[in-house]
Amino acid sequence: MQKIRVACFGVSLDGFAAGPDQDLKNPLGVRGPEIMEWFFPTKAFSAMQGKETGEDGIDNKMAEAGFEDVGAWILGRNMFGPVRGPWPDENWRGWWGEEPPYHVPTFVLTHHARQPLEMKGGTTFHFITDGIESALAQAKHAAGRQDVRIGGGVSTIRQYLQAGLIDELHIVQRPVLLGRGESLFAGMDMRAMGYEVAETIKGERATHVIVKRKS
Amino acid sequence: MQKIRVACFGVSLDGFAAGPDQDLKNPLGVRGPEIMEWFFPTKAFSAMQGKETGEDGIDNKMAEAGFEDVGAWILGRNMFGPVRGPWPDENWRGWWGEEPPYHVPTFVLTHHARQPLEMKGGTTFHFITDGIESALAQAKHAAGRQDVRIGGGVSTIRQYLQAGLIDELHIVQRPVLLGRGESLFAGMDMRAMGYEVAETIKGERATHVIVKRKS
Repeated sequence: MQKIRVACFGVSLDGFAAGPDQDLKNPLGVRGPEIMEWFFPTKAFSAMQGKETGEDGIDNKMAEAGFEDVGAWILGRNMFGPVRGPWPDENWRGWWGEEPPYHVPTFVLTHHARQPLEMKGGTTFHFITDGIESALAQAKHAAGRQDVRIGGGVSTIRQYLQAGLIDELHIVQRPVLLGRGESLFAGMDMRAMGYEVAETIKGERATHVIVKRKS
Repeated sequence: MQKIRVACFGVSLDGFAAGPDQDLKNPLGVRGPEIMEWFFPTKAFSAMQGKETGEDGIDNKMAEAGFEDVGAWILGRNMFGPVRGPWPDENWRGWWGEEPPYHVPTFVLTHHARQPLEMKGGTTFHFITDGIESALAQAKHAAGRQDVRIGGGVSTIRQYLQAGLIDELHIVQRPVLLGRGESLFAGMDMRAMGYEVAETIKGERATHVIVKRKS
């Protein structure tokens, strides 16, 4: 059955899933990479760079699982790029170069219309201006029987959580202190929203927590 | 050198270090025990109940280390009991029965004076009404060369952190969702306050994170 899910989403000891002050030099916000230091050493991450290096442990297995059976992605605009407001031109084509790691239709939430952007390797970015439900409906259709992965960022995931639209989250609990940043769960009562921890997997550099909504 | 430290203090995936609605039946707040489910199976916890059972793994080693070389404790009043406001009588003698697990002078922060309470096994509760600095000065003196452990609860630890008085924290990162409760780090920029992660130890049911203030 098709699931709407979040995967490989890191959270620091102090509750942040991204650093503050995102810009061109800090796509994950200042100190944001500390949240992802479980991912960078993996084979899965190396493969994204076209390399065959990297570790093949539990963290890698969890990273690979995050990409499996995903038929469409949804990204918030800040996850697509640092540009704010109307698109000044068509030059910004994402953080990832000409071949993004998605390889399926990818729906970008924005208030500013833009033509679809076909990249190498199967990723096409579709810019959706009529809200998160519309983006999800289009992503579900595009994904066929496969899952829809809500890629982030924090604000996008919070919006989908608050709308009750996410079935499963794979959260990566990281033992780092960020100090400032974007809090994933602040002000949200995940238990009252029907979520519970279904499974815990200890990785090399993080604990992987599978959170599911009670059916 | 004498340290002022927090030990064995659990935090959930959503940032809570205690559940909501503490009362006589819920000393740790509703669902609060989920944060401590790493501790309950240990030999250290069994020993507190006068039993010789329990697991002897990494979580146990960390629990035992929390009690080592502690010459005095500081507790917030809610950690001492559920009574609020003036003491109606002297009947409440703590959550722990006649022999509390402290075995050293233990300073309880309160707005309501009360005579010291000598318990079995070396614990004497001193009720301090003139603030956290005074309690710390008295605890440091009582501890001699040993450490002062700030036992909790959350509000007490936050007050000492904000006053810049804590040298080291052993935080126990637990893969559970509480939904509601008392947030340990909300609104505090631990990095700006000079804290950093010094060490990470993977236990059986939790990740132990040692946080130190840069000297």
